[in-house]
Amino acid sequence: MTDISLHRPFPADRVAQWDFETDVAVIGFGAAGACAAIEAAQGGAQVMMFERGSGSGGASALSGGEIYIGGGGGTDAQRAAGFEDSTEDMAAYLKEAGGPCADEAKCDVYARESLNHYAWLKAQGVPYRGNFLPGKHIEPIDDSTLIWSGSEAAYPFCEIARPAPRGHVIQHIGWGGGRPLVDLLEARARDLGVQIVSDARAVALVRDGDRIIGAVLRIDNADHFVRAVKGVILCTGGFVMNEAMRRRYCPDTFRINSPIGDQDDGSGIELGMGAGGDAIHMEQFFTTCPWTMPQSHAFGVFVNQSGQRFINEDCYHGRVSRHAIDQLGDRVYLLLDNAHFSQPLDMAGIGVAGTGDSWTEVEQELGMPMGTLSNTMAFYNAHAHEGCDPLFGKRPPILTPLDQGPFIALELHFQNSYFSFFTLGGLRTSIDGEVLDRAGVPVPGLFAAGRCTSGLPAWGHGYSSGLSLADCTFFGRRAGRRAALAG
Amino acid sequence: MTDISLHRPFPADRVAQWDFETDVAVIGFGAAGACAAIEAAQGGAQVMMFERGSGSGGASALSGGEIYIGGGGGTDAQRAAGFEDSTEDMAAYLKEAGGPCADEAKCDVYARESLNHYAWLKAQGVPYRGNFLPGKHIEPIDDSTLIWSGSEAAYPFCEIARPAPRGHVIQHIGWGGGRPLVDLLEARARDLGVQIVSDARAVALVRDGDRIIGAVLRIDNADHFVRAVKGVILCTGGFVMNEAMRRRYCPDTFRINSPIGDQDDGSGIELGMGAGGDAIHMEQFFTTCPWTMPQSHAFGVFVNQSGQRFINEDCYHGRVSRHAIDQLGDRVYLLLDNAHFSQPLDMAGIGVAGTGDSWTEVEQELGMPMGTLSNTMAFYNAHAHEGCDPLFGKRPPILTPLDQGPFIALELHFQNSYFSFFTLGGLRTSIDGEVLDRAGVPVPGLFAAGRCTSGLPAWGHGYSSGLSLADCTFFGRRAGRRAALAG
Repeated sequence: MTDISLHRPFPADRVAQWDFETDVAVIGFGAAGACAAIEAAQGGAQVMMFERGSGSGGASALSGGEIYIGGGGGTDAQRAAGFEDSTEDMAAYLKEAGGPCADEAKCDVYARESLNHYAWLKAQGVPYRGNFLPGKHIEPIDDSTLIWSGSEAAYPFCEIARPAPRGHVIQHIGWGGGRPLVDLLEARARDLGVQIVSDARAVALVRDGDRIIGAVLRIDNADHFVRAVKGVILCTGGFVMNEAMRRRYCPDTFRINSPIGDQDDGSGIELGMGAGGDAIHMEQFFTTCPWTMPQSHAFGVFVNQSGQRFINEDCYHGRVSRHAIDQLGDRVYLLLDNAHFSQPLDMAGIGVAGTGDSWTEVEQELGMPMGTLSNTMAFYNAHAHEGCDPLFGKRPPILTPLDQGPFIALELHFQNSYFSFFTLGGLRTSIDGEVLDRAGVPVPGLFAAGRCTSGLPAWGHGYSSGLSLADCTFFGRRAGRRAALAG
Repeated sequence: MTDISLHRPFPADRVAQWDFETDVAVIGFGAAGACAAIEAAQGGAQVMMFERGSGSGGASALSGGEIYIGGGGGTDAQRAAGFEDSTEDMAAYLKEAGGPCADEAKCDVYARESLNHYAWLKAQGVPYRGNFLPGKHIEPIDDSTLIWSGSEAAYPFCEIARPAPRGHVIQHIGWGGGRPLVDLLEARARDLGVQIVSDARAVALVRDGDRIIGAVLRIDNADHFVRAVKGVILCTGGFVMNEAMRRRYCPDTFRINSPIGDQDDGSGIELGMGAGGDAIHMEQFFTTCPWTMPQSHAFGVFVNQSGQRFINEDCYHGRVSRHAIDQLGDRVYLLLDNAHFSQPLDMAGIGVAGTGDSWTEVEQELGMPMGTLSNTMAFYNAHAHEGCDPLFGKRPPILTPLDQGPFIALELHFQNSYFSFFTLGGLRTSIDGEVLDRAGVPVPGLFAAGRCTSGLPAWGHGYSSGLSLADCTFFGRRAGRRAALAG
C-alpha cells in the first residue's frame, strides 16, 4: 500500500474495505481531541477517537491545566477577588496578544463565550477552588484557581484593555494540572460512549471527490481504514518535535533547544495541508525560560549583551523570554540586587555570570565596556525611585530600584539554559473548526483544533499562559459540535 | 468552467482541447522567466512564455539590474580592483546571509558556478564596464560595475568570510538597470524562437495523474489551455502585492507600507502549493529605507525610541532597515553631526525630528529622557575616537565620531517614511528548479524560479543587493535546462 501518505488523501474508491465505521473520527487525544469528542457525542454523533500514544494526554497533559477565561462581568473567582472583567476588555487583550497574527473572529467569539465555556468545564467535572493567588506565578504550587497569567497589567496591554487576571487553574496541588484535566475529559468522553483506539497513528486521510470521509490508521504495523461519515477532526498538536518541519517553517527555534511536546510531529498539519488546507503563521512559537522563580526574581532587570534593556520586565515571562531570544548574541542577563536574589531553579539552567559590590563591578565581571550595564542600571534606579520607567513603561510594584548590593547578573543562555518552546502556527480554521483552504473555503469533512491550528495563541511575542488550553478546549468543542452536524 | 482554480490543478481528462502545445511553458516574464526560457530553448525544447502584463519586465525591471557574483578567484571587475575572491568565502557569506533560512545546497552551487554565470550573462549580451566604484552606494549613478552591495565588510560577516564586493551592475547610466537587463534577455529569448504571449494570466495548472502537463491561461477574458509536454516553469514573483496572503503568511510587513512589485500577487506560489508544492519561510521579507543617500549619511548612528543603538550601521542598508523595524515603537532615528548631514532624498520621506548644539539638546527635542540618546552618543564617540565599537563591532572608516555640532536626528517612521519591501518566502525547489513537495520529492513536470521560490535571498535580516537577481537568473537558467531534459 505505497500510496498511503500524509501528503495527499487516499482515494476512497481504492479502499478495499473499511475496518471501522463511525460518524466522527477524532485524531489525537489531548484536550482538544477530548473536547471535540465530547461535543460530537453530545451532538448525537457516533465518535471514535484515535491516539498515537498508549493513552490520552498529548502535550495538554504536560501543561499546568491552566485555561485563560474571563469577560462578561468576570468568573466567580475573578469577582470574588474584586475583578469585574468585561467582554470588550478581554477581546481587546486577546487581539493585542495575537499581534499581527490575531484571528479577530476567534478572539471575539471566545471573549463572548468564555464564561459559558467555564461553566461547561465545571459541568464536565473540572474542579476549581475559586480563589485568587496574588503575585507572579508560572503556576500555583498549591491548588489555587486564579492567577495573573499574561501581560494584562503591563504596558502596552494595560492601556488597551482594563487589566484582569484570567488564568484559571484546575484544582490540583502543585504543577502539572494538565494530566488530571485530560483524565476528567477522558472519563467524560468514555461516559458518552466515545470509542477510544490507542496506539493508532493517522497516516493518511481518505477523500471521496472533494470530501474527506475517513482516515488511515497504522495499528500494530498494519493500515486500518476508518470511515467517518460526518468528518474527521485533527487534534494532533503542533510540530515542535519535527526538526525537518521546524527547519522549513520555524527555523528561529534552533536558537533554543528544549522543545516541549509529546508526539507533536506536525502530522495533522501535514494531513490538513495535503487535503488542501492552508497553514498560517508557521514561524510563530512560544518560548519561556522560568526566570520568575523564585518570585523575587520577577523584580529583576534584563539586559542584552550590549548592556541594554529591551522590554518592560513586568510583562509575561514568556513575552520577556521571546524578546530575549530576539537579541543579538547568544544570551541575556537577569540583574538582581541582594534584596531580590535567591538561588535560581535547578531546572532553569540559569547560572551566575557576574557579581560585584556595584553595578560597575558586575559590568566588569561580564566583560562589558565601562558605562554600559552600569549606566543602564543607574538610569533605571534613578527612575525607579520615582516610580517610572520612561524607556519601557514598567510599573510598580514590580518596578523597584535594584540598589542594595551586592549585585548579581544571572545568565540566560539560549542554548544552555532551559528555554522551552512549542510551535503556534498551523492549519487555518473557521471559528467552527472547519479547516479552510487557501481561498478561505472549508475543506468538506475536515476539522481541526488545538496546536495543529493557528488559534488564540497566534503570536509568540504576545503569548499568555492558558491561551493554548483555552483554544484547544473551546475550539475543540466547536469543531466537535460542527462535525456532528455535518454530512 | 467553474473548476478553474489557482488552488488545485485542473484534471487533464477534462481539457476539451488544447489551444497551445509546446515542450516547456514558462509563466512570468521577468528575469527568472527569461533565463528559464533561454536555457530551455538552448536545451532543444520548444518554449512558450506567458506573461500577465503587456510586456516583459516584472519586478526585475523595477530593480537596479545588479547581480551578486564572485568566488573562484574573482571576476574581471573584482580582480582589476584588487579583490581576489574565493568560492569558499562566497559560499560562507551566502550561508551567513541566509541565516536560519539558508539553503546550503543553493549557496554552494551558486558560489561554485557564479563566474560561469557571469560569463553566460555577458554571452547573452549583458554589458559590464568592468570598473569598481568605492564607497557605499545603493546603486551607481554612473555606469560603473562593481560595488559593495552587502554586509561583507561588516561584523559578523567579515569574521566569517574574507570580504569582497560582489554587486555587479549592468552598464547603464543611472539607476534602473533592471529594465535594460530584461530587454537584453528578452531579445535573446526571441532570437532563440521562444514564443511570447502577453496579457495572459495563469489561472490554473493542468495535471495528468501525478504530473503537471500544462496550464490554463486567461487571455481576453477566456480560458486557454496550453499543453507543456516537458513541464511548466513558474516565474511569477513573490506575493508582496497580495494583502490577503501577506496577512496569512507575512503580517510583519504591515508595519511598513511601500510594497515594491509589479504584479507580484503570489499566484505562482498558490499554483505550486495547489499542485502539492511546499512553500517555506513565507514570513521573510526584504525591506529598506534609502538612508545611506546622500552618502555622508552612511556615517550616521541609529537609535530606537529608547535612545539605544541596535546594529552596526556599517552593514548593508537593508539589514539595518530590517533590524530597525524590529524595534519597539513606530520609528527610529538616524543621528548625524554637521560634518555628515546634508538634505535627505525627497523620496525617502525622512524628516528632521530634532536638532541641537549638543546631543543633550537633540535628546530633549525628541522628548527622550535625559541620559538616553546623549549617553549613547557620548559612549559611541568616545570609542569611535579610538576606532572601536565595543557594542556592535562597527568598523572604520564608517565608524567615525559624530561630535561636530550642530547635531541632527532624522526620523525614519515605519509608516510615513519610504520603507520599501518585497517578500522572500515561496516554493521550495531543488537546485535544479524542481518544485518539491512537503516530503522533499519533486512534483513531476513542475519547476519554479525567482521570488515565487525561497532561494539565495532567504532571510530578510541578511539580504544583500544583487542576491535576488542572482537567484532569479541563475536558478531560472537551471530550471529551464532541467525542464528541457524532462518528460
